Order: sequence, then structure tokens, then C-alpha cells
Amino acid sequence: MKKEIIAIDLGGTQLRAARYDATLNLLAREHMPTGADDGLAAVLARIKAIISLVMPASRDQVDSIGISAPGPLNSKTGVIVSPPNLPGWHHVPLGAIIEAAFGLPVYIGNDANVAALAEASQGAAQGCRHVCYITVSTGIGSGIICDGRLVTGQAGLAAELGHIPIIVAAGKVSSIEKEAAGPAIARRARQALIAGDHTAMLAMVAGDPQQLDARVVGAAARHGDRLAIDLLAEAGRIIGLGIVTALHLFNPQIIVIGGGVSKTGELLFAPIRQTVRDHALDSAFLGGLRIEAAALGDDVALVGAAALAATQGGDMDIGELDQRF
Amino acid sequence: MKKEIIAIDLGGTQLRAARYDATLNLLAREHMPTGADDGLAAVLARIKAIISLVMPASRDQVDSIGISAPGPLNSKTGVIVSPPNLPGWHHVPLGAIIEAAFGLPVYIGNDANVAALAEASQGAAQGCRHVCYITVSTGIGSGIICDGRLVTGQAGLAAELGHIPIIVAAGKVSSIEKEAAGPAIARRARQALIAGDHTAMLAMVAGDPQQLDARVVGAAARHGDRLAIDLLAEAGRIIGLGIVTALHLFNPQIIVIGGGVSKTGELLFAPIRQTVRDHALDSAFLGGLRIEAAALGDDVALVGAAALAATQGGDMDIGELDQRF
Repeated sequence: MKKEIIAIDLGGTQLRAARYDATLNLLAREHMPTGADDGLAAVLARIKAIISLVMPASRDQVDSIGISAPGPLNSKTGVIVSPPNLPGWHHVPLGAIIEAAFGLPVYIGNDANVAALAEASQGAAQGCRHVCYITVSTGIGSGIICDGRLVTGQAGLAAELGHIPIIVAAGKVSSIEKEAAGPAIARRARQALIAGDHTAMLAMVAGDPQQLDARVVGAAARHGDRLAIDLLAEAGRIIGLGIVTALHLFNPQIIVIGGGVSKTGELLFAPIRQTVRDHALDSAFLGGLRIEAAALGDDVALVGAAALAATQGGDMDIGELDQRF
Repeated sequence: MKKEIIAIDLGGTQLRAARYDATLNLLAREHMPTGADDGLAAVLARIKAIISLVMPASRDQVDSIGISAPGPLNSKTGVIVSPPNLPGWHHVPLGAIIEAAFGLPVYIGNDANVAALAEASQGAAQGCRHVCYITVSTGIGSGIICDGRLVTGQAGLAAELGHIPIIVAAGKVSSIEKEAAGPAIARRARQALIAGDHTAMLAMVAGDPQQLDARVVGAAARHGDRLAIDLLAEAGRIIGLGIVTALHLFNPQIIVIGGGVSKTGELLFAPIRQTVRDHALDSAFLGGLRIEAAALGDDVALVGAAALAATQGGDMDIGELDQRF
């Protein structure tokens, strides 16, 4: 008989925990601030405390614990390498620490990887066996499911679509993330402002280019500001080239795009779709291909952490999730 | 009890067939010219004839037929789409044709994909479960094994590493293949010759730039010609960026490089390795990573076709090959 699963979403800001029954009904849910600035020991104590809060009276009911954490991390060893938004965390064996504390198997996956499992089990990619999930926000992360299994690689480092190298000008090598994530969009908007370009964004930040972020660009674009629209289109074209790479390497059924920047909708999706049409090697790669917005909201990483545990760290086929949930 | 396998290598020039026993001992082998210019019907007749030549007296001994063919092809349906070196072939259902003729299951894979299986079962990647195989010759093809299984995608079109888009100058989009395969190397050599660059290649082609191909560039580089060395290094840097993409997406244990251009050895491999070191996101991607030359020779596609059949089209784990062979 299938047992319950505990899921943890360790974010830079919020720490979430949930307990699910064997068919993914939510039994308990807690959240608290991560308080990342308090350092490693304080955050570890909060993780243990929030697990205890959702733990049932009898631990025997629980099959395993799934944890979504910010990368880079080694999903094979459960070691968190050194995430920029968790100060003081350097090669922390989080898997071993939580296993020792609760005596249960622990599976750890990076947030974008588990989000792919979540979208495939309950979201936009339900029923698909070949899935590329991309999240565009402060960075660009991804999770890839290949014939029903999460692509993790030899050390659990795979699926870093944001770090595909691209040549920008004069042979200089940059990456999809550096040229198309939120900070890149904001950087170009600031440069345009400083260069004196005419745009409604100037008033929106009260004349201070330093106040400009991707959110402002998104809002201005929705109100028809030409420069803001062009900046999102440029980001869309670069993300689109990353997606063409994913098409040619993985030949997926669906591309799911999430993350804060993706909330700009067609302003980003239309140039992405156009770039994919323009540069796909053959129409066969586009046959039956869907490019869609992520369907799950703030709980995507919690659902993903549960799916990660249910597939034993992504090693099992996602078909297991259909039987389970 | 495991049965015998028949393997076919349908190349643009040579048509090869072999029969292997359950432990991959060669029992029979035949080859003949493909005679591609004679058209579809003639080549189909030769394929059937060569299969009959290696077929044992009792067809019951044979488990299945594996075929290596030039891409693009749909490995799920067994349809050959339209390979440039097989004139007159357009959406030919080769799998169905051979199944009907011999009453045996037929598995078809593109030559680079099955070469990855061959190198993983008997070549440079033996014992590895995360493998990227790249072949650099007239084109750039690849085959990728992810946690023991061939990456094929929803329609069997995956692993086209040569068609990763790259931005060259002024936003123009090209591809790894267009910028680094043999014809690109030859093109740049011709341009340099026409521009009057000093190089030993001029004498090697008796003053005629049109005689220049990648083979000449390779030979000149081996003799210390500076321009030829630089041209191979430039190709190596571009291939290296494609490999960085593969590292970040697949996190493999080994990169195996084959194909005619790879025979230039360190002249190509050194700039590839340098580029990988320079642009890998984190040293964790390089931990334990090997970049090696392909180990199998002309029979790589035959061995690969046998491995393809033994893994039922790449759907089964390559661990099956260890048990089998």
C-alpha cells in the first residue's frame, strides 16, 4: 500500500511544507519565512521544525520526504552546493541531515527540475512523456523529462538551459540567462533610459533608472510602451533560441514556460513562438509541439517535491505518478 | 534464451550487413555498394538481398533486425524522411517494408544515434550510463544516452547537436554544423587562399582553391601550417561550445568524438577541451568528465544497429547489452 509523502519547498524567502496522502490529497500545510540571512544553523532548525509540524503522529505512515531547493545542488548525494540566495550555505549535506533527523528516505531536487515533475503530473504537461519546463525570473532554470524520466545526469546537475552559451558580439560568449532573464531586461531598459530614449518607464520610476526592474518593463509593455515591448521581444528571441536547442536535442511534446517574467504573456510568448518557427531545423520538430504557460502557481515546488519523492528522486517513470495520484 | 540479431548499415556509399549471436560474436558479414544513384527500388532490392545473404537457414533463430540509416528519420515509425545522400528517398517506410519482407521486428535508428549505442557497448564509453557521442565530418551528428537509455524524443528526432543554433555576426543565426563541420573548415580555407594568405595549402591544391577540402586542411595542419592549425582551432572552439551546451543539459560522464574531421586528433581536441574548461558553468560539470576519441572504426554503425535491436530501438536500458554481449 502506498504511503504518505512529506514535501518541502526551501525558497530564498519562503519555507513551505506539506503532507500529501497516497493520491496527492493535501493533508497538512505550513509555511514560514526562510530567514535566510540568519544563516545556515537557523535555517536548518526551521526546516526540521516545519517538517515536525506536518509530520503525522505515526511516522510509519510516511514513505519519504521530498525537498525542492535552489541549485546548484547534487541530487545524487543530496548536497546543496552554494545557492546565491542562501548565504552561508556551502556544500551542505541537507539530504543526510534530514535523513538522520527523521529516519526517512530523503530526495532533493533543484526547484526547476521538480517544477517540471509538478507540471507533468498536475499542470500544463499532464499526460506528456517528453517535457521541457523553463522558468524565467531573476535567473533561467529548467527541468527536462525525457520519455517519462527526469533528466538529472551523472551528478544531478543536468537541465541548466539558462546556461547554454551564446555568442553575442565579436566572439564574446555569454549565456541565455545573462542575456534574457529579468536582470538583463532591466539592464537594457536602464541603458536606454540613460541614453535618453523616449519611454513611459522614465515616469514610472520617477526619473531614476536604478529603480527600473523587469517588473516595470512588463507593466510598461502591457500599457503599450514601444521600448518596453521591444525589450521583451528581444528577451523572447534569445529564450526562443534556447528552446530551439532544446527541440533539436530532446524533441519534446511540450515546452512549459513559468517564472515571473513569463507573466508578461504574449508579449514574451509571441516572439518565442516566432523564433522557434524561424529556426527549427524541420517542421517535423514542430509537429504536435505545444508551447504553453505554466499552470501551477506558488505551490509548484511543493507539488514537485512530492512528485520527486513519489518517483524516488526522478529515477522512476512519471507513469508511476498517474498510478499514484 | 537470447536469439541472433541481424544488423544493417545503410550508408550513402556502402551497404553492410552482419549477423551476430546472442553474445555479439560475428557469425556472418557481407557488404556491397549501396548504388544510391540507381534510385529507391534498386537500393531496396539490395537491402533485401543482403539481409537474405546473412539470414540463417532457420529464421526462427533470429530475434530482430536493426538498421542504421542516414537521418532525418523517425525512429518511432521507421520512416526515412529524405536523406541528402539517398536520392529519391522521401518518407520511405523502410521499417514496414523490411518487416513485411522477413516477418521479423525491425528497429531503425539514425547513424549517429546507433553509433552512441555502439561506443557505449563496445567502444570508448563502455560501462558509462551518461554518454554524448558526436561525429564531425561532412555534417555534425550526435547520439545521447541518458541514464542508460538512448534519447530519441517524441518522434525519434532528438540529439541533433549539430543543429544547435548559434549567433554569429550582427544577430545572424547559424548552427554548430554550418560553422564547424568539414565544409565550413574548407570554406574558410578557400576564403583565406583567395584573400592571399600565406599557407602551404596553396601548393597542396596546385593553386586551385576549389580543390580545398577539410582533408587538405587536416594534412596541412599536421605538417605545421599555421593557417590550417588556426582553422581547426576555430572549428574546435565552436564544437566546444556545442559540447558545453551538452554538458549543461545532460551532465554526461563522457563525450566521445568521432567522424573524419576528428582524425586530426589534438589539433581539434585541444581547443575543444580548452573551450569546455573556459565556459563550463561550474567545475562540478568537469568532475570525472572524459573527452575521448571514438574507439570503433568502420563497423561502428553495424555494431550500433545490433545494439539498437538488442535494446528494442533504444527503449531498453543499455544494461541489457552487458547481460547480452
